[in-house]
Formats: sequence, structure tokens, C-alpha cells
Amino acid sequence: MTELTTQASLLEALESGQYDRVRELLAALHPSEIADLLESLPARSREMLWGLIEPGQEGNVLSHAQDAVRAGLLELMQPEQVADATIGLATDDAADILQDLPDEVIDSVLLSMDAQNRARVSTILSYSEDSAGGLMNTDVVSVRADVTVDVVCRYLRQLGKLPEHTDSLMVVDRQSLYTGTLPLSSVLTMKPDDMVGEIMQSGMAIPATTPDHEVTRIFEQRDLLSAAVVDEQGKLLGRITVDDVVDVIQDDAEQAVFSMAGLGEDDMFAPVLFSAKRRAIWLGINLMTAFLASWVIGRFEHTIEQLVALAVLMPIVASMGGNAGIQTLTIVVRGLALGQLSKSNVPSLLLKEFAVGALNGVVWACLVALVATIWFGKIALGVIIGLAMMVNLLTAAAAGALIPLTLKRLGIDPAVASGVLLTAVTDVVGFMTFLGLATIFLLP
Amino acid sequence: MTELTTQASLLEALESGQYDRVRELLAALHPSEIADLLESLPARSREMLWGLIEPGQEGNVLSHAQDAVRAGLLELMQPEQVADATIGLATDDAADILQDLPDEVIDSVLLSMDAQNRARVSTILSYSEDSAGGLMNTDVVSVRADVTVDVVCRYLRQLGKLPEHTDSLMVVDRQSLYTGTLPLSSVLTMKPDDMVGEIMQSGMAIPATTPDHEVTRIFEQRDLLSAAVVDEQGKLLGRITVDDVVDVIQDDAEQAVFSMAGLGEDDMFAPVLFSAKRRAIWLGINLMTAFLASWVIGRFEHTIEQLVALAVLMPIVASMGGNAGIQTLTIVVRGLALGQLSKSNVPSLLLKEFAVGALNGVVWACLVALVATIWFGKIALGVIIGLAMMVNLLTAAAAGALIPLTLKRLGIDPAVASGVLLTAVTDVVGFMTFLGLATIFLLP
Repeated sequence: MTELTTQASLLEALESGQYDRVRELLAALHPSEIADLLESLPARSREMLWGLIEPGQEGNVLSHAQDAVRAGLLELMQPEQVADATIGLATDDAADILQDLPDEVIDSVLLSMDAQNRARVSTILSYSEDSAGGLMNTDVVSVRADVTVDVVCRYLRQLGKLPEHTDSLMVVDRQSLYTGTLPLSSVLTMKPDDMVGEIMQSGMAIPATTPDHEVTRIFEQRDLLSAAVVDEQGKLLGRITVDDVVDVIQDDAEQAVFSMAGLGEDDMFAPVLFSAKRRAIWLGINLMTAFLASWVIGRFEHTIEQLVALAVLMPIVASMGGNAGIQTLTIVVRGLALGQLSKSNVPSLLLKEFAVGALNGVVWACLVALVATIWFGKIALGVIIGLAMMVNLLTAAAAGALIPLTLKRLGIDPAVASGVLLTAVTDVVGFMTFLGLATIFLLP
Repeated sequence: MTELTTQASLLEALESGQYDRVRELLAALHPSEIADLLESLPARSREMLWGLIEPGQEGNVLSHAQDAVRAGLLELMQPEQVADATIGLATDDAADILQDLPDEVIDSVLLSMDAQNRARVSTILSYSEDSAGGLMNTDVVSVRADVTVDVVCRYLRQLGKLPEHTDSLMVVDRQSLYTGTLPLSSVLTMKPDDMVGEIMQSGMAIPATTPDHEVTRIFEQRDLLSAAVVDEQGKLLGRITVDDVVDVIQDDAEQAVFSMAGLGEDDMFAPVLFSAKRRAIWLGINLMTAFLASWVIGRFEHTIEQLVALAVLMPIVASMGGNAGIQTLTIVVRGLALGQLSKSNVPSLLLKEFAVGALNGVVWACLVALVATIWFGKIALGVIIGLAMMVNLLTAAAAGALIPLTLKRLGIDPAVASGVLLTAVTDVVGFMTFLGLATIFLLP
């Protein structure tokens, strides 16, 4: 049964009150699939379904849900229920869930945990959610450098079970300082009397305060499955596993797309008032730039009165500038996000974007000039719209590159604010050039 | 030394012809960092730097480079050089590099490989680049279910080295049919006389023809580090490791952002003519919608002639509709990409988006009506622009939801084509409603 048909049958069973059938369908699903289902349901059905999930599954489902959806579900739970739900979860997943809660609830959940788990989860919570420390898992198996492979093997067999996603052991010294990484594959392939210190790899120790996007870059570049997390002294605190890094990458990617549209929310079925408020901010900012453009047009009322064709054609100049500018902007914002833009190559990039803008400017300006000339039977009008388009496409290339670079330098996230500024520039320059040139050359 | 300062010193050394210094700086970098550097360099410097990379590193650097950049570098190489570069690479990385080459070059590279590698790489190449088979690695250690853990341990020690990123062994029967997965951690923690068949996990066998986005979804949902790939008969072909899945996720995310701006390229320093051509397609499509909007305005020339304020205000109506529509659209496109939208919840989503549109419509319509009334001293004009905005924001909500849903049903990628269609709708409806209402109610 595919996910969509399960979803349909579940919803049907839910609406017709066949709760046993719902429970039966839920039992066949992986917690992450249940989380997906919850995300795809409107608020009322979501709450009903949540009430039917096995208490033992709640923690796993929560740890797979998106932040916004999880926050909504947590609001339906008592602190003790939250504490129960975190039992049996990996420490990083438990911390993830707690991070979203108010401080007093966190405290009461922590109090209802056993001492060891409380200490581990508290360590993670003491770091920012967006740092290596906030991402790490404190369940980690460590060994000394001065023992043999055989000793390690016997130790592991005694443990009986390794934490989830253990692909390597951490090597520490007597002061718990991280000294290296011992892949499980080495333990299995090396001779029993080899010393850990001789066969361990130098590995990657990530300071706990490293920002998460830096962590993802390290994982991607080195193709890591896991990495040690250390404090300022180099003491081993825990490890980050690639599955958590994948989540960060996904969230970042989603945010990039969402922020381009001025959306802060990530819940498809967020309450109407909540969504409307979030989006209103973006619409308000856009309205200001739209009024700015209107004001520019207003300066030329007299010109338009005498030649209405200008009003007909002016949106073309603005819109082409906006579209061309967004292309340059996307390239630059991405280059900045990947850390690939610096003083040494920005001039080359500007030059290239300018050349692309000029080339496309000439092509489309000629075409638009031709169409305008034929449409309104005025060669002068065609020449002027062609010129205005050339100017606006070059402006768009420059603005598309310079706006994100400037915002970055000012410490503002270029992914969020660049688009609206760019549109303001291309609208204003587009209307001003076109109507201005027309005022000078076309009016009697 | 951070990446950016390395980049600056490298470029300096490169430009001043200090090639020994360049080689020295390169030696300290990870192949993925060298790939990043190449990506951030303009074409000429990129070729110069490429010539200075150790031949033994070329394969590793290529396998970390973006598709477009890699294709450019491969053009600089002879088939024998490419074959040499693939020596020592994992089979999936070698196949990745070959996939970009013309068939005759692939054949001559394959011929210069040894027989075992040739067979392995050919297997991968026989599957689409975007499928599980194209992603898989054929270096895989398999064991039988009817042996003991002790036998497995001795076998592994004899092997001496496991393929990169081996976190588990694959269990197969006499016919090479996949029967389960044996994590290395189980081998290390279970008793020596336990049978593999008793302690193996049922695991996830992915058919080789599964599309790559489906593979990433499985890995994300199950938090997998690796998974077996099988043919139609269930025979083990290879395994997919999470590091390759991370690359697919990254590429998909990038493409989502790029396709919203109509960019097909992913090379910051692609040749000017190439970039200009790629982007021209998008600009051309946008120009058609802009002309459509102009044509609509043209129908109302007579109205605008009598009331130029309409020309001044009309971009506001269109632009607010476009922005509100993009917000709904982004939510729906994402819901579709995640497979979270179906017949059962689309009506709820439409209703919600309509309510959000109505709420924001009322708020901003009132504000714009007020400003327009004060600006032009005409209450009727204010009322009409307010009404037009309400209509356009509701249209935007409906179009933002229905356009991607319709495109999806028609088999067209909603991420690429939705935006331009939406703008066409909100422009046309915006101009038509505003100018139409004005023609009916404001003209004498």
C-alpha cells in the first residue's frame, strides 16, 4: 500500500469513527511515516489521529516531525507525557523534542528522567540548537589508545549492544581528551594484538560551538558517517551522526525555498490566523516597494496623459528587469552560502554577469523594440523601450550581484532580503528610464 | 588557514606564476576542498589550476565537483587520462565520472580498466544516473546466513580491509539472493557461535530501478546509513551509502531554488554565451506573459487616457497578487514534492489558503484603498482599487494552489513552470479587474 492510499484509508477510517481500524493501519507504519501523515492532515484530524497513536510510539513520531508540527503536538501534552515519550529515545532526539518547550516544562521533564539521562540531555540542551553541541548524541562508546584490538572486542561483546548508528569508536586518553577514531571495520579487520593507538585514525573533532551549517559542510566534504564533538579543552562530549546532518541539510534547503517567498512557517496546515500574520509581513514590505514604484510613475502622469502607450508598455520593462535580476541574484546567494565568493573572484563574477545581462539585454531589447514599433506604429517609441530595457537589464545584473554581497557584509541574511530589494531597484529604474526617456524625446 | 584565505593566496600564487607555491598549497587540501576551489574560479584560472593538480588526485577531485564543472574539466582530458584518474576510486565514483562522457570515450576508458573493475562499473552504468542502480556501489562484502559470527570475524580479518563506508555486511543465499543485513556492530557484540541468520536484520532491499528521490526518502525516513540494491529477481547488486544520498539531497535542493529562477546551470563561472542562452529561454517565456499583460492594459487605453491615476496605481494590484500567490504556490509545490498532498486533504488546503488570502486581502485592500483615496482625493478610486486587490488576492490563492496541482497531473514539473504561469494569471486578473471596474464605475 503506498503512502497516499494509506493516508486516504486512514482519513476515511478517522472520519467515520473506526478507531480500531485507524490503530491497525498505524501499527503497520514506521514512526517517520506517521509523522508525515500528521503533517499532511488539517488541524482537527491531526489532533484526533495524535490521540490514537500508541504512547510508546509518541517520542519516535515527534522526533521525526517538522518543528512547527511538533510544537503544535507538544502543546497537547502534559509534561509527564512528554517525559514518558522521551524514554528510550536517543539523547539527541530527546533533546530535540525538549528544545521546543518552555523552560519550566523542560525542567519538569528533566526531573522525571533518571539521573544519567538527565545529565546527558542537559549537556546537549546547554548548547544552541543550531550548533554541533545541540546536534550531538552523548551515547558514545570510547576506548583507550593503549589497549589491544582483542581487549576492545571483549569489551564490546560485554556491552552487548552499541548505540544506534555506531560506525566507529572514539579513542580518548585518561583525561577524556579526544585522540582519535577507531572504525568498527578496523576492529574487525586488524590483528587481535594490534594496539588501538597504532590503527586509529586521526579523525575529525568538531568543537561543540561550531554552527550547524559548518558541521554539514564538514560532513559533506569529508563524506563522514560520524564525527566526535569536543569542548574547548578537547574533551570528548559526544558524536554527531550523519542522519542528523541529513535533517539539517533538508531543513536548510527548505528554508532557502521558503524564505525566497517570504514564508516563515513550515506547517502546511498551520492555523489560518497564524499563516496570515506571518505572510502579512512580507506582503507589507512588498507593498512599500510597490508604492515606491507607483510614486515614480506618478512623477510622469503628464507624460502618460499624452501618450497612453507608455502605460501599456511600462510593465514589460520592469518585469524583464526583475526576472533577469533574480537569475544573477540566485547565483550570487548560492555562491555566498557555499562560501565560494571572496574579494578575489567577485570582480570576475560581476564582469560575467554584466556580460550575460548585456547579451540578453540586446537580444530582448531589439525584439521588444520591434514589437512596440509595429504595435503602436512609432519607431521612436520602439527605440526608447529598447534603450530602457538595455539599461534595466544591466542594472538588474549589477543589483543582482551587489545587493546580496552588501547585505552579507551588513550581517543580514541575503537569502531573505535580497529579492524584495532587487524588485524595488528594477521597478524603479525600469519605470524611471522608460518614462524619463519618453518625456525627453517623445513629448512635443 | 580558512578556505577563503587559502583561496586568495592560491589565486595570487597562480597569477604571479609561482606554481611550486600553488602545488604546496594544494597538497594541504582535501580533494573536496580543491573541487570547491575550482568551482569558485573563473574559467582561465580554473584550467591553470587544474593543470597543477597531482594526477593521482584528479579522480578524487572530479568526483567531488559539481556536474557542470566536472564536465568542463573532463573536456580538457584524454580518455587515457580519465581512465588513469578513475584508478583507486570507489566504483560508484568512477561510474559517476564516466556517466558525463560521450559513449565512445566511456568505451575506451572501460577498455583500459582491469576486467573486474570494468564489469563492476559497467553494471552501474547500465542503470540510469537518477536511479538506485546508478547511485549504488558494487564493492560490497556479503556473507551467508548459515555461518557463525566467528566464521564472519575470521573472514573479515582475512580480507584485511573493508570497502569505504561499510557499516554492515549483506547476507545472501546460494543464489546470491539478498536475505538480510548484518550490522558490523552486531558482529562485534554477538556471541561467536551465534548464527548470522539468527542475528541479521531484515533490512531494506531497494530495487535498482527505484528513482533517486524515492531512495532519498527511504534513507531519510528510516535514518539509514546504507541499504542493499537488488535486481528484479532479488539478487544483490550492490549497496547505496548515505554519503551518496546526501549528494542527491543537496543537488535536489539546489535545483529547487535554481528552477524557481529559471536557471538550468549550476556553474557560477559558466561561459557567458552558455549562461546567456540558458537564461534567455526563461526571459523569453516571461516576455510572453508580460506582453499578455500589456495587451490587457491596451484594451483599456481609453480609460487610462481619461484617468492617468489608474496607470500609476495598477502595478500595485498586480504585484501584491503575484507575491501572495507565490506564497501559496511554494507551500503546495513543497507538499507535492514530499508526497503529502492527495485528494483527501487538497480541499482542506484550498480552503485554508483561500481563508489566508481573504484575510490578507481585506487588510491590505483597506490600506491601499485609504492611501489611494488620500493620494488622488477620490473615494471611488480607493474603493475600486480595494475591490480589485481583494479579487486578485483570492485569485492568487486559488491559482497558487491549482496551478501546481494541475501541472503535476499533466506530468509537468510544478517547481519549474508554476511561477511563470502564476504571474501571468495575477497580472492579467489584476489589471483586468482594476481597469475594468474603473471603466464601469469611474468613467463619466
